Amino acid sequence: MKIYKKAILPQGFLANGVASGIKKTGKLDLALFYSKEPAKAACEFTTNKIQAAPIELNKRHLKYNRHFQAVIVNSGNANCFNGKSGLKDAQGAAQKLAKNLNINKEAILVASTGIIGSRLPLFKINQGIPLLVKGLSKEGIHKAKRAIMTTDKFTKEITLKLKINSQTVTICGLAKGSGMIAPHMATMLCFIFTDADIAQGALNKALRIAVDKSFNCITVDGCMSTNDSVIFLANGLCGNDTVETNKHFSLFLGALNKVCLELAKMIVKDGEGASKFIQIKVKKAKSFSEAKRVALSIANSNLFKTAIYGENPNFGRVVAAAGASGTNMQEKDLKVKVGPLNKKEINIDVSINRGHASAVVYTSDLTPEYIKINAAYS
Amino acid sequence: MKIYKKAILPQGFLANGVASGIKKTGKLDLALFYSKEPAKAACEFTTNKIQAAPIELNKRHLKYNRHFQAVIVNSGNANCFNGKSGLKDAQGAAQKLAKNLNINKEAILVASTGIIGSRLPLFKINQGIPLLVKGLSKEGIHKAKRAIMTTDKFTKEITLKLKINSQTVTICGLAKGSGMIAPHMATMLCFIFTDADIAQGALNKALRIAVDKSFNCITVDGCMSTNDSVIFLANGLCGNDTVETNKHFSLFLGALNKVCLELAKMIVKDGEGASKFIQIKVKKAKSFSEAKRVALSIANSNLFKTAIYGENPNFGRVVAAAGASGTNMQEKDLKVKVGPLNKKEINIDVSINRGHASAVVYTSDLTPEYIKINAAYS
Repeated sequence: MKIYKKAILPQGFLANGVASGIKKTGKLDLALFYSKEPAKAACEFTTNKIQAAPIELNKRHLKYNRHFQAVIVNSGNANCFNGKSGLKDAQGAAQKLAKNLNINKEAILVASTGIIGSRLPLFKINQGIPLLVKGLSKEGIHKAKRAIMTTDKFTKEITLKLKINSQTVTICGLAKGSGMIAPHMATMLCFIFTDADIAQGALNKALRIAVDKSFNCITVDGCMSTNDSVIFLANGLCGNDTVETNKHFSLFLGALNKVCLELAKMIVKDGEGASKFIQIKVKKAKSFSEAKRVALSIANSNLFKTAIYGENPNFGRVVAAAGASGTNMQEKDLKVKVGPLNKKEINIDVSINRGHASAVVYTSDLTPEYIKINAAYS
Repeated sequence: MKIYKKAILPQGFLANGVASGIKKTGKLDLALFYSKEPAKAACEFTTNKIQAAPIELNKRHLKYNRHFQAVIVNSGNANCFNGKSGLKDAQGAAQKLAKNLNINKEAILVASTGIIGSRLPLFKINQGIPLLVKGLSKEGIHKAKRAIMTTDKFTKEITLKLKINSQTVTICGLAKGSGMIAPHMATMLCFIFTDADIAQGALNKALRIAVDKSFNCITVDGCMSTNDSVIFLANGLCGNDTVETNKHFSLFLGALNKVCLELAKMIVKDGEGASKFIQIKVKKAKSFSEAKRVALSIANSNLFKTAIYGENPNFGRVVAAAGASGTNMQEKDLKVKVGPLNKKEINIDVSINRGHASAVVYTSDLTPEYIKINAAYS
């Protein structure tokens, strides 16, 4: 397996990014990802009960359609809490794009990130679409990756190449988000593309597992966005022996896990205001989900996070947060090990003596800078 | 009903506070509350799975005993996460006090607040106990109320007098805590005393309801202490017509609700670093607990709390936090009203159009001062 720290699109994929004027700064704000051949799709969306219009539209398209060719993404506006107009606007953009690409509108997935409760400026998007389509290219990924950013300080990109039988499969992932840290633009978006030939069931299963151990294992402030989406397209152009849930699966999953985990860690590291990257490992739990619940309870404790910021070895806060998770643990079985605090990367190890499962969660510290950023009105 | 903003002990109760040396500053750190006659007790403790030794001891005493005469409280040390020694130390203090008061040790309840994971200095407490007992008086309540404080900026006290038939019943409440805001001393403790004659079932029920609508409706940072306790003693000396769950109950409950709610609000207002007092009312929910869940989800959102600090009318954060509560709500049914933000007291009204129940939750904003305080090593 080879790892590249930049985005390299797999066979048959093109991309582009333009400045449509949604962002008043004139920065890139509209991205398009396109597969020449129809691709299978797997998606994971926020579990927030208030979901943005693009997620609603995607769910409809995923229900009735099995082949997808394009993903259009805008930054600067979340298209959330806009009532019926929100869905209409998302549909409008998909329609316009479908016409320009000459494909069915149901073959399109959409994503938005930015301010909540402001109407999407559809006319700007419609103006941008012909330019987006016209400029599609392999190298366009480097514009697209910037067009999905909001307050991100750096692009989040990774490419893996792995052999399945004799064929080289490429998996390329992009993400945006500073973990709900940004003031009005708080969404985590991730787009993954592969030329692997993979069965629909295997694709869904692999993404679900990989997201559970990566994006669902990071937290900056415990806040859950209305727009969080992971969209994964597989166009099969590599011609490898098809990945099934019982064939080449663990190999493929291992690579996808790596892509998702590296992107997730980049999101935590980009958390505005964050001065420390914290890894919390909970061991000897009854199950992965139990271990994760305890780790997240620690990771979301403001008292714990401020102690790390202050390089204050206050293990009592770890104990209190672990107990607050609701997991039935015995005081005598709880062991806490806190690594050196004067580093940029901090390790917390917790053992609860209940079983053999473990989980790792990543978070950042809570700093005055976080408050400064989030208190400001844009 | 008459309300006094200071502690006035009901008939038959005495109190005292001394400086035993647990606090290195020489401030008062040991409090005693005493009832001349055996009193009924009702208690509510933290639901944190890691519970401090005093809570463990109280649970044993409450299991086998129905009559209580004394509550001893120390500040400066939480006696938590100290293994078997913790329980032994708590028992030691109760034993010494029992001897000095000439009562059964099972008639004593205990509470501790302060740093977690440091052994309780039992010899200091044992030295303090004879002085505590010797100085017991009606006016001693004003020493006791200061001896339970840690980083509290002001004492939290209230007294209510109400008529039950022709008798005047007194309910007096004290609390300490700045809502898990204080660095190493994060506990909420509350002690309530009444001379009312009340049946055990009515006492338990009234406290459970009152706590649920007061101390369980406040949050500063969502952190749950290992030591939180509400201890309520009723010695019956007033000679009123006995309060039962079906007699004089709503009258008594109304008064107790008031005592608990006022003390809970004082705790939020004393939150170190807090610059705003926020009231979040969720209406039209299916049940009180549903309304409370939504309100707490908003109250615990760091993004929401920083927006209030910044006087930033970002209602999208209220929407996202409400949706993150997991309550099945429709976007079209969600109505959010945010009051003027340039005040000290902020009102947020949320309506979810699901039913007829409502809940009110109180919290404070998240400020750079919070981080400064909590990052510092004592």
